[in-house]
Amino acid sequence: MSTGQTWTVGVTGATGYAGGEVCRLLAGHPHLRLAGVHANSSAGRRLGELQPHLLPFADLEVRPSAPEDLSGYDVVVLALPHGESAAIAAQLSQDTLVIDCGADHRLEDPAAWARWYGGEHAGAWPYGLPELPGQREKLAGARRIAVPGCYPTSVTLAMAPALAAGLVEPDVVVVAASGTSGAGKAAKPHLLGSEVMGSVSAYGVGGGHRHTPEMAQTLGAAAGGPVKVSFTPTLVPMSRGILATCSAPLKAGTDAAEARDAYAQAYADEAFVHLLPEGQWPTTAQVLGANTVAVQVAVDPDAGRLVVVAAVDNLTKGTAGGAIQSANIALGLPETAGLPLVGVAP
Amino acid sequence: MSTGQTWTVGVTGATGYAGGEVCRLLAGHPHLRLAGVHANSSAGRRLGELQPHLLPFADLEVRPSAPEDLSGYDVVVLALPHGESAAIAAQLSQDTLVIDCGADHRLEDPAAWARWYGGEHAGAWPYGLPELPGQREKLAGARRIAVPGCYPTSVTLAMAPALAAGLVEPDVVVVAASGTSGAGKAAKPHLLGSEVMGSVSAYGVGGGHRHTPEMAQTLGAAAGGPVKVSFTPTLVPMSRGILATCSAPLKAGTDAAEARDAYAQAYADEAFVHLLPEGQWPTTAQVLGANTVAVQVAVDPDAGRLVVVAAVDNLTKGTAGGAIQSANIALGLPETAGLPLVGVAP
Amino acid sequence: MSTGQTWTVGVTGATGYAGGEVCRLLAGHPHLRLAGVHANSSAGRRLGELQPHLLPFADLEVRPSAPEDLSGYDVVVLALPHGESAAIAAQLSQDTLVIDCGADHRLEDPAAWARWYGGEHAGAWPYGLPELPGQREKLAGARRIAVPGCYPTSVTLAMAPALAAGLVEPDVVVVAASGTSGAGKAAKPHLLGSEVMGSVSAYGVGGGHRHTPEMAQTLGAAAGGPVKVSFTPTLVPMSRGILATCSAPLKAGTDAAEARDAYAQAYADEAFVHLLPEGQWPTTAQVLGANTVAVQVAVDPDAGRLVVVAAVDNLTKGTAGGAIQSANIALGLPETAGLPLVGVAP
Amino acid sequence: MSTGQTWTVGVTGATGYAGGEVCRLLAGHPHLRLAGVHANSSAGRRLGELQPHLLPFADLEVRPSAPEDLSGYDVVVLALPHGESAAIAAQLSQDTLVIDCGADHRLEDPAAWARWYGGEHAGAWPYGLPELPGQREKLAGARRIAVPGCYPTSVTLAMAPALAAGLVEPDVVVVAASGTSGAGKAAKPHLLGSEVMGSVSAYGVGGGHRHTPEMAQTLGAAAGGPVKVSFTPTLVPMSRGILATCSAPLKAGTDAAEARDAYAQAYADEAFVHLLPEGQWPTTAQVLGANTVAVQVAVDPDAGRLVVVAAVDNLTKGTAGGAIQSANIALGLPETAGLPLVGVAP
Repeated sequence: MSTGQTWTVGVTGATGYAGGEVCRLLAGHPHLRLAGVHANSSAGRRLGELQPHLLPFADLEVRPSAPEDLSGYDVVVLALPHGESAAIAAQLSQDTLVIDCGADHRLEDPAAWARWYGGEHAGAWPYGLPELPGQREKLAGARRIAVPGCYPTSVTLAMAPALAAGLVEPDVVVVAASGTSGAGKAAKPHLLGSEVMGSVSAYGVGGGHRHTPEMAQTLGAAAGGPVKVSFTPTLVPMSRGILATCSAPLKAGTDAAEARDAYAQAYADEAFVHLLPEGQWPTTAQVLGANTVAVQVAVDPDAGRLVVVAAVDNLTKGTAGGAIQSANIALGLPETAGLPLVGVAP
Repeated sequence: MSTGQTWTVGVTGATGYAGGEVCRLLAGHPHLRLAGVHANSSAGRRLGELQPHLLPFADLEVRPSAPEDLSGYDVVVLALPHGESAAIAAQLSQDTLVIDCGADHRLEDPAAWARWYGGEHAGAWPYGLPELPGQREKLAGARRIAVPGCYPTSVTLAMAPALAAGLVEPDVVVVAASGTSGAGKAAKPHLLGSEVMGSVSAYGVGGGHRHTPEMAQTLGAAAGGPVKVSFTPTLVPMSRGILATCSAPLKAGTDAAEARDAYAQAYADEAFVHLLPEGQWPTTAQVLGANTVAVQVAVDPDAGRLVVVAAVDNLTKGTAGGAIQSANIALGLPETAGLPLVGVAP
Repeated sequence: MSTGQTWTVGVTGATGYAGGEVCRLLAGHPHLRLAGVHANSSAGRRLGELQPHLLPFADLEVRPSAPEDLSGYDVVVLALPHGESAAIAAQLSQDTLVIDCGADHRLEDPAAWARWYGGEHAGAWPYGLPELPGQREKLAGARRIAVPGCYPTSVTLAMAPALAAGLVEPDVVVVAASGTSGAGKAAKPHLLGSEVMGSVSAYGVGGGHRHTPEMAQTLGAAAGGPVKVSFTPTLVPMSRGILATCSAPLKAGTDAAEARDAYAQAYADEAFVHLLPEGQWPTTAQVLGANTVAVQVAVDPDAGRLVVVAAVDNLTKGTAGGAIQSANIALGLPETAGLPLVGVAP
Repeated sequence: MSTGQTWTVGVTGATGYAGGEVCRLLAGHPHLRLAGVHANSSAGRRLGELQPHLLPFADLEVRPSAPEDLSGYDVVVLALPHGESAAIAAQLSQDTLVIDCGADHRLEDPAAWARWYGGEHAGAWPYGLPELPGQREKLAGARRIAVPGCYPTSVTLAMAPALAAGLVEPDVVVVAASGTSGAGKAAKPHLLGSEVMGSVSAYGVGGGHRHTPEMAQTLGAAAGGPVKVSFTPTLVPMSRGILATCSAPLKAGTDAAEARDAYAQAYADEAFVHLLPEGQWPTTAQVLGANTVAVQVAVDPDAGRLVVVAAVDNLTKGTAGGAIQSANIALGLPETAGLPLVGVAP
């Protein structure tokens, strides 16, 4: 690890959406320097062919992604398909800060891993959601960090305060709208522009999405006991952004003021999580390209439910920005270093 | 009423989105003929200036919208802001088929009207959702029809079968994604293209949307008792379409096969409602511009919920198409006359 | 050929965008009946899996696409990649009306074919753009029809009147914006929704697009001599539609009134081509899903150019609707039978 | 003027799109600090209500926009409707750096001002396009700067090198696609999301757009003589971005290598203008939110034209980023300070 002001970063999976976003953010980071880009299938090509927006890095050559190719960096970011990180990470130096944007090290329960992903459980790493109580302590000085999934980031930040404060029953219903970049860059017919523009669709309905056990894990920790999660993701015609609409039955006696207080208190000192003023509702545009989260909370007395809506950019706070935020903490840097606070709107 | 093959239709509010869609559909109707267009603020202008897509009707002059302007038609369609229909309708002949695309005559309970809309309750008319049990009988020969709201159309068709069959508890959670045309044609800053493209937002959260009591009414009728409805609408970047994601707690013993059977049976003879094959999920693109509804149902055993997703075009089956479908029934025409069955995709 | 009121139609390439649009339009055609769907790679699957919007045809089985599979229809529509039509068509009965949506039979000049497509020239068929002078006579009774490309349809209708009337120099500059469906349904990374939403891009710049010689052919015929065409297509974030902005240097003495007259006269009797009132400019939304073309013309005296803008739906008038329009003529049916005149807007 | 490291900036018109973008960029600027926001109609409201994405500035109160309200800043940015800047600027101290994002001080020719805007000509200020030859010298130390229009920025950077090098005739045809934010935040029906999504339209056809004389001015300066400009802007369904497709007749003897060399040389030392590698074409996504310009050039020998395509973000390099770039030069700061180099893609 360098003792100077700058740490070198290698990114593998740099030709995908998550890896590309890591590179974009590193272009503006005062202490982290993109030192190499890696990917399996595109090795040997110019990065500019594959990521035309990364103009300052256009002439970098994409290198292979084997563990030996990734040695020598202070920080390695793994932005690979699920199941590919664990084997690589196991061969990287324990002194290297390794940040996994994939799912391999998120789930603590081997049975949950086996059920939802299959194969051997690689073990959980410190979970890169610093806004959870006590989490910054676990991330400080860490050399292995598991970046949360994009949906779990939004849903956990939306519901954890209410569950922790005992305002609602542990029975959460989530319907989340996601931009298409969450589905990745592999060309599949249903992700063509012609298919997604002008259309909203549901997928993974009835509990089929792999982010569900991760939400159950984070929300269960907040509630101090098991939480049921009904999760339906939908695909909407935009590239980036998640709007998570979450609700749960109110416990007797919870009122709107109490609910608002719980959120105001939970996020009072957070740089990236904004509880909006009453009456203003989150939009994904307001956080586009930023590491921020916009949250609003309401009580529906007729239906007897607490409704919380959170907006994040799935690639920024939901993946790459969250990764860098945790890296900042692990390296002892200011938590906000290099992270945009303002969305690109309109 | 004409005894011939063709009925004349006058449309008021023809310069708005709902009224424009009525005109579009009439252009292809074998028995209904658009005979006049009306609107308040644009009277005297060519329709083509205001509705550039209505090319065959471009040279029609928009006429005023007072009751006397609307006499002489066999059918009058009112596509006006809420609260403007009742006074006009009261002065139209009882022999005229009057179809109200607004809310004035949907709610049966005067107290619900008073709470959600205010002012005097004009009384309920036959509700134009023919797919509800027994509803076609009420519409046959009717001369006054209240067209359902676009959200209630999608949510009612999604959840009524499960509630009627006793598969779920009467405690429904709905998160619906809507295209912007549902918000109308009045120019408001938050509806600008610059604001809505690339963004999803929530509104009316916590039970604030006026379509909620209408859903409670239709679902309560299906369930045979009160139904709690938590409804959160979201605005997504597309012009048309609603995707309603609905769920409710499973009653003990309900399984997936039973749920699927209930829906298959409910919609077996319906021309416009399609229960999709297992594994295929609704998209709004597949019903764009068509009078069809795509429905899918799933059981989530972990969360203990039934999840139903329905896609409609808010302007077609959700408003103008539904209006014409009911008019067809009222006039003794084939129910599908003039109504597109195929969405404009991709 | 059936002597009755209904002709059977077989569509091959029915799983693609052009073929799907042919099927959509046939669903509303009073005299043509979709009798079978064919495709190479998807044979054996339900059409509904591949074209979810074709709900009335969802249970049709996709059959193979060899010539013997396509026998027995009154009409065969070929919606195949360029170069695949000629060999199939050569084996179909001369009594069958064969309509080729591909490029194989559009170019009259074997040298142009060789340069732009390569391989042997299959020979030109009657060109399916009935609005060209004298063209309806060539299509009446024809049993082989070449459907124009989508760009040439818009550009020819935009510029032919001015060239025929001698208003401009034969030196045309075209920049056309196209929705992504024009690029087809094959999954390619640059056509992913994530890439195309929020972005406009150019392609085939500098004369590289294969539709250029086709425009030179049609415009040259109108001008009665060679016409230079500079053509730049751009890809815009929508599924359907082409907006072609065309211009050419004014000949000395041409004024705005003369230009307008030429267009008014050329399209006075056309059901599908609308010269908009002065001051109103075409939008692709106004023709979405319709077989119509919206045209406007202006004179720029400072730049000394005539500017003409035309909007078409690339899949409807630009391909499938144009195919059916020509089929109607060939079969002696009303030219507008089964063809929507009103776009699906907003 | 402060002699320290930080200059205070006041932004008027901060509630609009251009002003909002200035604020967004200032949030990341190391030497410029947003010290106050102003606007006429919204004075007294929280900025967060009107610009929800400017979360770090949400609690700033919007103040009025009279000259006396704007005193005391080191830098004042005017992001006002055309015609409102001149009167305000005239009353601000000559020591204040005043940057006008409007048109009032762009045109050098009073006759052009009178024809295109009307009223009295306020006189031209140093033109804020540093990439023009000799322009940086005029901006260094300046206290009044006119920010170019968004279209002229893209078109000038696209065509000036070819005209300066004498590669083409002075007869330029431009068709530019613009996102809707270029049309501003005032709510007009044709800018509603429902109208613009899924649609491309033309406007200001035939030479009617006010940016035309500005292009004639900049291109004329490059060519050393009058240049004819045919300019057609189109509106495409995205919030941000301009793709300008420009062409002109090749002079005899110009070949592709020569053309490419001229551009490579013109932009070799520019931080923000990128001539793409051969075969790669600009997309607006690659520059979204960045101060960069992507350019590509091609020769079409058949049509005898040079075709140049340029992509900019109309709000960033096209307005607010260009403003800050010029401010950096005027204040002696590094030209790239605070300006994103990487677009937010996908």
